[in-house]
Amino acid sequence: MQGTFASEDTLASVLDRLAEGRDEALERLFRFLAIQSISTDPIYHEACIEAAEWSAETLRELGFNARVEPTSGKPMVVAHWFAPETKPARAHVLFYGHYDVQPPDPLDEWTAPPFEAQLVDDRQYGKIIVARGASDDKGQVMTFIEACRAWLAAHATLPVDVTVLLEGEEESGSPSLAPFLAEYGEEIKADVALVCDTGQWDATTPAITAFLRGLAFSEITITGPSRDLHSGIYGGPARNPIHVLTEIVGGLHDAEGRVTLPGFYDDVRVPSPKQLSAWRDLGFDDAGFLGEVGLSQPAGESGLSLLEQLWSRPTVEINGIIGGYTGPGTKTVIPTEATAKLSFRLVPKQDPDKIIDSLHLYIEERLPPDAAVSYAGEGGSPAVGFDTGAPSFQAAADALQAEWGKPPVIVGCGASIPIVESFHTQLGMDALLVGFALEDDRIHSPNEKYNLTSFEKGARSWARILAELGDANVAT
Amino acid sequence: MQGTFASEDTLASVLDRLAEGRDEALERLFRFLAIQSISTDPIYHEACIEAAEWSAETLRELGFNARVEPTSGKPMVVAHWFAPETKPARAHVLFYGHYDVQPPDPLDEWTAPPFEAQLVDDRQYGKIIVARGASDDKGQVMTFIEACRAWLAAHATLPVDVTVLLEGEEESGSPSLAPFLAEYGEEIKADVALVCDTGQWDATTPAITAFLRGLAFSEITITGPSRDLHSGIYGGPARNPIHVLTEIVGGLHDAEGRVTLPGFYDDVRVPSPKQLSAWRDLGFDDAGFLGEVGLSQPAGESGLSLLEQLWSRPTVEINGIIGGYTGPGTKTVIPTEATAKLSFRLVPKQDPDKIIDSLHLYIEERLPPDAAVSYAGEGGSPAVGFDTGAPSFQAAADALQAEWGKPPVIVGCGASIPIVESFHTQLGMDALLVGFALEDDRIHSPNEKYNLTSFEKGARSWARILAELGDANVAT
Repeated sequence: MQGTFASEDTLASVLDRLAEGRDEALERLFRFLAIQSISTDPIYHEACIEAAEWSAETLRELGFNARVEPTSGKPMVVAHWFAPETKPARAHVLFYGHYDVQPPDPLDEWTAPPFEAQLVDDRQYGKIIVARGASDDKGQVMTFIEACRAWLAAHATLPVDVTVLLEGEEESGSPSLAPFLAEYGEEIKADVALVCDTGQWDATTPAITAFLRGLAFSEITITGPSRDLHSGIYGGPARNPIHVLTEIVGGLHDAEGRVTLPGFYDDVRVPSPKQLSAWRDLGFDDAGFLGEVGLSQPAGESGLSLLEQLWSRPTVEINGIIGGYTGPGTKTVIPTEATAKLSFRLVPKQDPDKIIDSLHLYIEERLPPDAAVSYAGEGGSPAVGFDTGAPSFQAAADALQAEWGKPPVIVGCGASIPIVESFHTQLGMDALLVGFALEDDRIHSPNEKYNLTSFEKGARSWARILAELGDANVAT
Repeated sequence: MQGTFASEDTLASVLDRLAEGRDEALERLFRFLAIQSISTDPIYHEACIEAAEWSAETLRELGFNARVEPTSGKPMVVAHWFAPETKPARAHVLFYGHYDVQPPDPLDEWTAPPFEAQLVDDRQYGKIIVARGASDDKGQVMTFIEACRAWLAAHATLPVDVTVLLEGEEESGSPSLAPFLAEYGEEIKADVALVCDTGQWDATTPAITAFLRGLAFSEITITGPSRDLHSGIYGGPARNPIHVLTEIVGGLHDAEGRVTLPGFYDDVRVPSPKQLSAWRDLGFDDAGFLGEVGLSQPAGESGLSLLEQLWSRPTVEINGIIGGYTGPGTKTVIPTEATAKLSFRLVPKQDPDKIIDSLHLYIEERLPPDAAVSYAGEGGSPAVGFDTGAPSFQAAADALQAEWGKPPVIVGCGASIPIVESFHTQLGMDALLVGFALEDDRIHSPNEKYNLTSFEKGARSWARILAELGDANVAT
């Protein structure tokens, strides 16, 4: 069927299969969502294994040659579907997603148990799927798998050869990724990577993400007295680690909202006037973006638009802080230590290691007598950008336009997807970032949701993208 | 026996009784220490009731007319022992202590369960009693009760009439105290209050505390977004409550260690040169005081001695802080709120309400757009000082010199005892602050201890103080 995958008849029967199988598809997703695969908390290690095994078995049912490949952390799911005929040379794509999810806390803010998925009526969107991982990333992963299932059911083949790689540490810094790619890179290397972990422009407009911010993180712990002290007896003369920590992290931004680390902006490129005007032309709704989460004014660097901040400026956030007595009531204590979790968002050319070094220098220069600092969980990945003129990029754009009735918006993403940088640097493989999440999906938050239309039109979109990629034959 | 209580024979038989009953006394203390009367945590409400009932029953055994008086919070223990003969007019003293204790956390730093008291061999002190509350305040309370027990066993009488008041909210701001004193003040009012919740100068030198710092506390919560946000998607433009909180509390001290609240030092009196030289003459071991808790240099206001800071300067401490993700690993979240628990130590003339008002003003002036603040658990009590020339003060000084072989040091105390201020303002009653705790008792910390000698010589000291008070007849 070379060259005709995207023909009306061929595609129609695939899309029909998706329509007929919609209930079973939802059941499969709900089973996937019931597995508490929280990679950042060791308590849930077994659940992560279970999520990997379930994914591999699901791919085997479709005819994939699938296995669960152990790592020093959470295992990788590796699966291949290669057409029997090898001539003419077929395109080969690598699909990437992750089966791990964020911790669900604070639990008491969920309207239903986070791992018992619910199909809920929503005034704005009709039906929504509510569960941890519904959008990030289990729901998105299943849009692609269901598209493959429909293609195989309708035509007993796929338009391109497909390798699937599902990671289990995306939410915890992907420590096992580099070693895995070093060992199995040649096996999974394809003409292009399809990554489904991003969002649409809005509920009715698809998007392809062409650049991603990088990430660097560090957990800093300040220690002081050798034991907890009574703040009446010692208050004043005794060094208080919470004071030290708050003075240090409280000083990370200046009055203009700029990060105060020495050299932090040295490698940051200012977007071209052309780029800036293109972003302005998108008519992004700053007030709506903030209003949806109860905010009214852009924080961060003064004088910069929201998109300019999110797509071209680095930041530092304090993601967590704890020290001293945090239970009910009062306890007049000076604690022995206090800890803060920091994460930096980086833009192209910034080096995560250099940023972490400058954080250490900044802290150590401000450390008063009798206070010590230690660091944990440090790591990161640089930002990346892609060639929007590549055939695979155009093929995806055509497919998305066919499904959604309008061309996809080419966007940047404030968040980081370390795998994309690794594919680029370790395997020399470009990635196509297409996802169907929405800004209000509450990922990483209580009551995470994925619209039923995101799930169903997402699968239809992948069915079309596979067809366009097959016709364009992006084999290199 | 009027006028001869302190005579050698009379006292000797009382002290003999203490020596004979030492094992039983220790058993009684251990039973008291086994009750988990943590007043600041509602989970332990019943245990607080149990501690009150146990104390009342113990006093009844001695012949006191004792009852547990309910309050809107934790009950008060009220007990009286009045001599049958009412002429000549006898002195009447009110003994105050508290049966509640601080939370034991962090639990994993205890070498034994905090509520299973152990008698441990200590290289420095011989035997020490290790348990939460051993020093603060159950051990100290029992020194007085055991002294009364010995007096009654030896002579079937006490040198003075005694009322005992044991509070159950001393570690949680004493919210029920004012209403209780308003209703029962006349019943418990005495010639002088004996308060056993302070420390010695050192292990071989007694002390009488003549001034106490006051206290003001506030729990501040900063709120921002209406839900937890992904720091990749929102990081930069979204207001982060942890940033706001750390900038605010991180700015509470200037480079000289002075508190930055407007007007904070307005009412603070500078000690007289005479006072300062008297403190210098005490030869306080700054290095030893700090070295014992792993510190080497005085923090706080630069240029001031430790005693000057602790006895004459106000402070603010951050006792606890929490916000965002604090579990294992990383979570790139911008949380909806962050909270800090603050406590101020005040000196005479400072008004707690005025300090809290200035804190609110300080915070609200620094609150950026889209950040809100709320306050909880606010309250406080002013600092107080006493007349060191009063007969009761001299009587106690003589008794302590007789027991310890040297005169007591007249000290200030950095910590607050709200009851002392309440006795003064609500009942017009002065207090005598005598205690046998040591700086290294680790009160409010893991492995709190009370030296066996503190417990035994403490009881002997009270036996002597009761005698001197009886002879001095401080009846007013």
